[in-house]
Amino acid sequence: MQIVIALFDRFTALDAIGPHQVLHHLPDTEVIFASERVCDVTDESRTLTMRAQAGYADVPRPDIIVVPGGPGQADQMTGPLPDWLFEADKTSTWTTSVCTGSLILAGAGLLKDRNATTNWLAQEELRYLGATPRPGERYVFDGKYVTAAGVSAGIDMALALAGRLAGDAEAERIQLGIEYDPHPPYQSGSPATARPETVEYFTTRSRFAHRI
Amino acid sequence: MQIVIALFDRFTALDAIGPHQVLHHLPDTEVIFASERVCDVTDESRTLTMRAQAGYADVPRPDIIVVPGGPGQADQMTGPLPDWLFEADKTSTWTTSVCTGSLILAGAGLLKDRNATTNWLAQEELRYLGATPRPGERYVFDGKYVTAAGVSAGIDMALALAGRLAGDAEAERIQLGIEYDPHPPYQSGSPATARPETVEYFTTRSRFAHRI
Repeated sequence: MQIVIALFDRFTALDAIGPHQVLHHLPDTEVIFASERVCDVTDESRTLTMRAQAGYADVPRPDIIVVPGGPGQADQMTGPLPDWLFEADKTSTWTTSVCTGSLILAGAGLLKDRNATTNWLAQEELRYLGATPRPGERYVFDGKYVTAAGVSAGIDMALALAGRLAGDAEAERIQLGIEYDPHPPYQSGSPATARPETVEYFTTRSRFAHRI
Repeated sequence: MQIVIALFDRFTALDAIGPHQVLHHLPDTEVIFASERVCDVTDESRTLTMRAQAGYADVPRPDIIVVPGGPGQADQMTGPLPDWLFEADKTSTWTTSVCTGSLILAGAGLLKDRNATTNWLAQEELRYLGATPRPGERYVFDGKYVTAAGVSAGIDMALALAGRLAGDAEAERIQLGIEYDPHPPYQSGSPATARPETVEYFTTRSRFAHRI
């Protein structure tokens, strides 16, 4: 099984690494990081650089596609990534995204009228792009499309996907292997539980503020 | 503030990226990935490659040290990493680890008689190296030493550390920024909650089996 995780300038690292850390443990699975061409790709922090070992043209028919999000998403709404997605999606078994990666899927026309999610700040942007946002869901399955909420939600999504791919017992083994027994020291992980001033900090500064 | 995350062959990517994704958002903070020298470093999956932008000699006095774990930990118990740790720890504000990274700290003599944790399979190995294991804790603070349990626990640890460094409000903003509102689809993240056969799968195969 070939899993391709797309990388682009100013992606959010955990969006890509969360699913990677779960999915690379699946049996008979190869995870490939791909970008426009074989190159180094730098994340939003500007100090983390990962290698894309393949260009999109090298991986035309992945079984599973994972598209991360991040500040760089805005520059990926046209060009090689959505062009590749549109074609690769025709033969993929699962097409997935984390955080604002779903905006790239939607921009490529893949989420039309489908239930989907994204970063909590971008739900209306997702609607604008033709999907039906499901705010408050950690991840959403609609047919072969699986979209996760912001950043860390890719871990939960990937475990759910691992269960569909290899069965519950395998997914449970992977969860224990990465000791995913989360105990956040604060209760500030969603706009429903964070303090109002924390939520407002983002809603007033978000690049999606005009649609919130 | 300078934060150095060590990289070595066959590290576990989420051990390093979980803390990175939290800590790089702190104000006035630079996160640097370092290794024996400037080079590309490949994780346990063999398909994820990250760039170490600095050699250990380039970062002799980090404010915060983060040491990940992974299958490659066994090859890091002597050599440049523990040598650097021993010196850099003399001036660090916080010396931290994720998963079996604490075995490297302990091997460098930094956790003698200190409360600490590690991967659930390596608790007795940690005791053998002179620390006092605290199995079942998600992360352990003892003086300036902070050690996290397996893999994904680095996210929880980093949020707790962010609170100590920059206050609760900042840590809560970071948590909402990475939408860390975990909803694992299974309850298999610790040996206390996983099914017995899932636990046994690991205990019989672990490289630490001789000490469990």
